[in-house]
Amino acid sequence: MKKFVNDPATFTDEALAGFAAAHRDLVRIGAGPTHLVRVDAPVADKVAVVSGGGAGHEPLHIGYVGPGMLDAAVPGRVFTSPTPDQVQAAVQAAAGPRGALLIVKNYTGDVLNFETAAELLAADGVPVATVLVDDDVAVQDSTFTAGRRGVGGTVLVEKIAGAAADRGDDLATVAAIAAAVTAKVRSMGVALGPAVMPNSGEPSFVLDDNEIEMGVGIHGEPGRERAAMATADEIVGTLLTAIVGDLPFTAGDRVLLFVNGLGGTPLAELYLAYNGARKYLADKGIEVSRSLVGNYITSLEMPGLSITLLQLDEQTTMLWDAPVHTAALRWGR
Amino acid sequence: MKKFVNDPATFTDEALAGFAAAHRDLVRIGAGPTHLVRVDAPVADKVAVVSGGGAGHEPLHIGYVGPGMLDAAVPGRVFTSPTPDQVQAAVQAAAGPRGALLIVKNYTGDVLNFETAAELLAADGVPVATVLVDDDVAVQDSTFTAGRRGVGGTVLVEKIAGAAADRGDDLATVAAIAAAVTAKVRSMGVALGPAVMPNSGEPSFVLDDNEIEMGVGIHGEPGRERAAMATADEIVGTLLTAIVGDLPFTAGDRVLLFVNGLGGTPLAELYLAYNGARKYLADKGIEVSRSLVGNYITSLEMPGLSITLLQLDEQTTMLWDAPVHTAALRWGR
Repeated sequence: MKKFVNDPATFTDEALAGFAAAHRDLVRIGAGPTHLVRVDAPVADKVAVVSGGGAGHEPLHIGYVGPGMLDAAVPGRVFTSPTPDQVQAAVQAAAGPRGALLIVKNYTGDVLNFETAAELLAADGVPVATVLVDDDVAVQDSTFTAGRRGVGGTVLVEKIAGAAADRGDDLATVAAIAAAVTAKVRSMGVALGPAVMPNSGEPSFVLDDNEIEMGVGIHGEPGRERAAMATADEIVGTLLTAIVGDLPFTAGDRVLLFVNGLGGTPLAELYLAYNGARKYLADKGIEVSRSLVGNYITSLEMPGLSITLLQLDEQTTMLWDAPVHTAALRWGR
Repeated sequence: MKKFVNDPATFTDEALAGFAAAHRDLVRIGAGPTHLVRVDAPVADKVAVVSGGGAGHEPLHIGYVGPGMLDAAVPGRVFTSPTPDQVQAAVQAAAGPRGALLIVKNYTGDVLNFETAAELLAADGVPVATVLVDDDVAVQDSTFTAGRRGVGGTVLVEKIAGAAADRGDDLATVAAIAAAVTAKVRSMGVALGPAVMPNSGEPSFVLDDNEIEMGVGIHGEPGRERAAMATADEIVGTLLTAIVGDLPFTAGDRVLLFVNGLGGTPLAELYLAYNGARKYLADKGIEVSRSLVGNYITSLEMPGLSITLLQLDEQTTMLWDAPVHTAALRWGR
């Protein structure tokens, strides 16, 4: 195995320690079961927004902790859900009397452990609401999921719910806004190859030389089909046809177009794919009003990308544009 | 070849078109020979800061065009220098009467083509100064270079010179500040594997299963040695021993520590390496005062990283901290 690792057993702890040290103006590792909080947590008089999940998808979620987005992130081991006591500790460190919104990607382990934590927190008298993100149109059920998987849309839900909490909205409103974004966002990904697990050194799956995984999950879960390699525009067209047809997105819609690298694809290829996606959408009369291009929710070093479309209205656009200051997304402050 | 490509002949043009569309609030593609400028270029009453070089290192340089950093970037084909007429067109679009600083990575083709452009511009009456960045301590001469290669330090020179120009410094002062940064910055990289060229589909070099390239260049040029794979802390120690010993950096120094991904290494591994680098420097009494961790100067999807150290003084720190608004680096605006 050729990866930057000292000891597989301490991989996620060492990476988290490095992250916290590099961004110590923004975040700190909280006491007790592992979690990361804003350095100034709990922030008085706001709803806390908390998310988490397995490691290996960085910058998700730790890179989104800071003013205007998350108050805390709960990282598990690589591709492994955090435990309920981790979630509980994160919310206790981040939330005040106005409570906390939990943003949970729809994977069975995450759903179960965040639910258990929510029950523990409710018993402690902490007001908690939960939103499940399930934006992946590729498949209905999957290796780790009943229903659809939560993927790229999660980044947008975290940003927009974070902005709502930042302006002072109450828990019910922040939760309703997060749910509305979830209802209007759709994604699908493609892998050109596997990731390599830092604990085992093994690839997450194996593809032939001319084969791609269309509709791949962020843990390397199978998608719709093993397709033959094609041009960038053809691959982007396949992804967008599935995404646009699902909601459906229609002519006249204004959208946020998010082209996300899964980890091992050069930025130039992501921008090339973005260029193709814009042309596809222009042909359908769909207006790209906001854009995000880069590695924001990854699967370690997997070569591949995902495309996410979010239907924008005036409020959603305003909340997207609102100032944010995190390690991985920053503007306006 | 499994890459997101439509036609190898139009790869860089399509990627650049996508970049310009995604960031059309910040940049535009200029008329004439291919170059990218600030959307508001030429900006009155400031020195223009212009850089460029082969594509394939994104976000360098196009990702650094915007207020507080570059006024223009000149992208060549993948790993190929831009032509003199491209550089000339970029400077003509970006510079006013206060002239332009050209920031050039020390590769033979870049040096020659930027020199030719500088002569053409001088003949046109445009005041021009040039700084060569040659921060790579790995080797003296290399495949594309006489003297040392320009690598990670380039990002820091561009940010700091850009801040000096932004506050209104004259050309001689901006050039002197850029040269002072170049004198105080040192880097070295390591590859765990090759990049894949989008034109040929061929790997940039071949390594055995347990072999790494210690001191690799950003075009896959050979480094100091083909070493055996080791732990993250051992690899970081080898890089930092070479870097620290070269300037040398000594106890009591305050530094900017920049851990840069070469493209195909997961962010978690970069933060893990950063964690090891901090411990190494703490042991030497060197204080990490500023940090940058992520993929900022890449070699397509090469798995690997580079470490850059910059000696900080009060002015350099202030210029680093100054507001910047580009696609890839943004704070304070």
